[in-house]
Amino acid sequence: MARSIDLVADLGEGFGPWSMGDDDALLEIVTSANVACGFHAGDPRIMDRTVGECVRRGVHVGAHPSFPDLAGFGRRTMDLTALEVRTDVVYQLGALAGFAAYHGTRLTHVTPHGRLGNLVGTRADYANAVVDAIAHVDPSLRVLAQDGCLADAAREAGIRVSIVGIADRAYEDDGTLVLRSQPGAVIHDPDEIARRTVRMVTEGVIDSRNGVAIPVAVDTVLLHGDNAEAVELARRIRRELEAAGVTIAAPAEDR
Amino acid sequence: MARSIDLVADLGEGFGPWSMGDDDALLEIVTSANVACGFHAGDPRIMDRTVGECVRRGVHVGAHPSFPDLAGFGRRTMDLTALEVRTDVVYQLGALAGFAAYHGTRLTHVTPHGRLGNLVGTRADYANAVVDAIAHVDPSLRVLAQDGCLADAAREAGIRVSIVGIADRAYEDDGTLVLRSQPGAVIHDPDEIARRTVRMVTEGVIDSRNGVAIPVAVDTVLLHGDNAEAVELARRIRRELEAAGVTIAAPAEDR
Amino acid sequence: MARSIDLVADLGEGFGPWSMGDDDALLEIVTSANVACGFHAGDPRIMDRTVGECVRRGVHVGAHPSFPDLAGFGRRTMDLTALEVRTDVVYQLGALAGFAAYHGTRLTHVTPHGRLGNLVGTRADYANAVVDAIAHVDPSLRVLAQDGCLADAAREAGIRVSIVGIADRAYEDDGTLVLRSQPGAVIHDPDEIARRTVRMVTEGVIDSRNGVAIPVAVDTVLLHGDNAEAVELARRIRRELEAAGVTIAAPAEDR
Amino acid sequence: MARSIDLVADLGEGFGPWSMGDDDALLEIVTSANVACGFHAGDPRIMDRTVGECVRRGVHVGAHPSFPDLAGFGRRTMDLTALEVRTDVVYQLGALAGFAAYHGTRLTHVTPHGRLGNLVGTRADYANAVVDAIAHVDPSLRVLAQDGCLADAAREAGIRVSIVGIADRAYEDDGTLVLRSQPGAVIHDPDEIARRTVRMVTEGVIDSRNGVAIPVAVDTVLLHGDNAEAVELARRIRRELEAAGVTIAAPAEDR
Repeated sequence: MARSIDLVADLGEGFGPWSMGDDDALLEIVTSANVACGFHAGDPRIMDRTVGECVRRGVHVGAHPSFPDLAGFGRRTMDLTALEVRTDVVYQLGALAGFAAYHGTRLTHVTPHGRLGNLVGTRADYANAVVDAIAHVDPSLRVLAQDGCLADAAREAGIRVSIVGIADRAYEDDGTLVLRSQPGAVIHDPDEIARRTVRMVTEGVIDSRNGVAIPVAVDTVLLHGDNAEAVELARRIRRELEAAGVTIAAPAEDR
Repeated sequence: MARSIDLVADLGEGFGPWSMGDDDALLEIVTSANVACGFHAGDPRIMDRTVGECVRRGVHVGAHPSFPDLAGFGRRTMDLTALEVRTDVVYQLGALAGFAAYHGTRLTHVTPHGRLGNLVGTRADYANAVVDAIAHVDPSLRVLAQDGCLADAAREAGIRVSIVGIADRAYEDDGTLVLRSQPGAVIHDPDEIARRTVRMVTEGVIDSRNGVAIPVAVDTVLLHGDNAEAVELARRIRRELEAAGVTIAAPAEDR
Repeated sequence: MARSIDLVADLGEGFGPWSMGDDDALLEIVTSANVACGFHAGDPRIMDRTVGECVRRGVHVGAHPSFPDLAGFGRRTMDLTALEVRTDVVYQLGALAGFAAYHGTRLTHVTPHGRLGNLVGTRADYANAVVDAIAHVDPSLRVLAQDGCLADAAREAGIRVSIVGIADRAYEDDGTLVLRSQPGAVIHDPDEIARRTVRMVTEGVIDSRNGVAIPVAVDTVLLHGDNAEAVELARRIRRELEAAGVTIAAPAEDR
Repeated sequence: MARSIDLVADLGEGFGPWSMGDDDALLEIVTSANVACGFHAGDPRIMDRTVGECVRRGVHVGAHPSFPDLAGFGRRTMDLTALEVRTDVVYQLGALAGFAAYHGTRLTHVTPHGRLGNLVGTRADYANAVVDAIAHVDPSLRVLAQDGCLADAAREAGIRVSIVGIADRAYEDDGTLVLRSQPGAVIHDPDEIARRTVRMVTEGVIDSRNGVAIPVAVDTVLLHGDNAEAVELARRIRRELEAAGVTIAAPAEDR
């Protein structure tokens, strides 16, 4: 059972004049940030500001690379080659690392966004392409993923892995997420989400939708900040974890 | 008078299915490459291939950041703020550095492309923005520029500067380039271009369009590869410099 | 003095997952819409939805072409050639006209957005380029502009012009807007904005910042919907105009 | 057996400073052009110039809409919704129609490009989305396609269809193309390509790779201009068709 947990959120997901979510509020709650790198969101000003704010508040900065699809926010399937995935990830990793260097810090982790993030769980060619990019650009980076191809490929390459728990999603008995297309895939009740998160972290157990207690070893919990309720829930989850005696911190090995 | 000179060309200036110039031929001739970073040219596959070829042949890899203007190839004036210039340069520097890291090398230099490259010669705010980016992202990078604001700002920040000589352009008596809009700005005669290059490098002198001998201290000569004649001329310039006893090499301090 | 006035707002200015302003509320208030065409905002889904909603509510659909600058929301100066402006406007006009045709209507007007919208007031080459595009693509379109080069060029080409009044901006004695860089350029007091609008429309007079009563012949008033207060003010302006006996309608000549 | 045939090529497939193929040469040979609309190639200047040249030479102008994928030249699979396909096609159709109007002509046909062009042959949802766009934007447009879902959907909607024959591709016994991934999919021998084209047009027969004579009713033959040999072959095909008594002309019903 984890007595220390990393809290992470997707940040810097605006573009140009447009913003998304309440980054300022989330930065008070999380210990790590997945920062958009320009392909699904995040222009250079937003990346600069987001990384600068992370540094100011001691939040660890990770890359959130995506398929090249701004209009689709990286959520649409693109059938790229492994070479295309690898080079797109190198480009985005490098670009964000530039802002980290500018602000006197280093990237700590990588987690693919949106549809790419789904596909690396099951497509070994994409998972290997992402790991190939990380292993050559900066093998000290940690991969943040659910169990699946990407986590496996990273471990095999000697790259650290943080398993992420998703508090507002239902799980199947085998530990995979219930597909979004199915009823009950997303949990909306704040009480239930908070309760599940604390249990996941303190007991190492998540209840499947059939009521099976699945053992999980979660290193990081993903929080959202899309609106005021989401931010309030994120705050509450942090508070309840602390009340349960859990230390909220990014991995010490990141530095 | 330089007994050793760096030869540089703009490389990787294709995009998607489109190519520009004969990179393979130029890579046999030059010692340094200015590599496009995606804003005026250069998608991640092209950047990857270009950097990989540079490494294979021992050519030093530099960043060629641009205004964000793919359709205009970075040649159109954009009135950006200094913050916009600085963050656009950090992004591009970082992205190319990602490919350098992937291929086991480091960037050696930076030289702004196109209209941005012109403006940093006279706009101190843009020059300072570029130097700010370099100084914080990687102060070991060398700035490649003509005399002007960028070279001044780099020196003041303790950043190495390579002065680039442009063999096919006419110079005013004060050492600035004759504006492209004026007749005679571009020299087309290969014999004259070759002769001027050798004189520039071996005697430290360039003849202005009024016949004045201007003292210059050129560290790098810019070559072109737009077509077969340009490549042939580049090859000839290298040959004639070698015949004149000049060593062709990138700066040893780059590593 | 106008007894009938057109109320217009900029609509469809989101992109991908991002939205801007409260289009639904504004569509209940305005009689004409300036619809983004993809260069500063507005992807094909947003354009489709916006035009469809306009048709459903009888709001006239106009094109809002911009410099090609999504990250800068079309607000940054680009020094394009007249050919570039003309072809960029043809492209955007055509694209939006496609959605108008799809929804069984026709475009009624054109008004350049952002920095292009400023520059056509004083740069005759840009004004002529925009008019050239309109005159050849659809000369029945009306130009919506303040007094200046674009309005002049349109009239000279036999194209209808609607002069737009901007209720929340201070005017100089000569009828031009006080530059945004100057104090007092933007009026924030809702009472004053409402009062100025009614006077502008019903008396044909606007008070300059020096208290001079400037005669104006306004055909259209520009409203905003950036936030709840702006929408409330837009609603109030419409209400007060109606209370003053003004008919709120787009030009009958549009059809 | 066709005694009159339309010859078509993909034109305007450059972008910014980059060009592709020899458009000038092809414009002397073909009677119809598929013009890129900005999503896989073709910026507004190139579209303007291409349409203008078509008008000057009497070549019919058709739209060549694509997935939104400039870096991948529209050749990569994207899993878009039918709504996304429909709105992307409306946008591109409209944009090109703008240039047609500017140059005093009208579009005559539509043929989806690249991967979208493949998928509309077998995905009914995409085929219907394209037909929906055409039927509402301009139902007088002709669809240019191989036999398959798009041709079927167009006919059902009362839209004219031109079946395109592809002279350098091998056919299966059922009249479909041999997949590119299979050996022999592309025919390289100019003599064979020319012979197959003449037979296809004058006898209404194409020989499958197993030697089966497949009856075909081809209205249009697709030519290429990627390099000097391709242009020479295109010229030869036109010459041999004329020598066989075939009239080379775009459909008279286009106007």
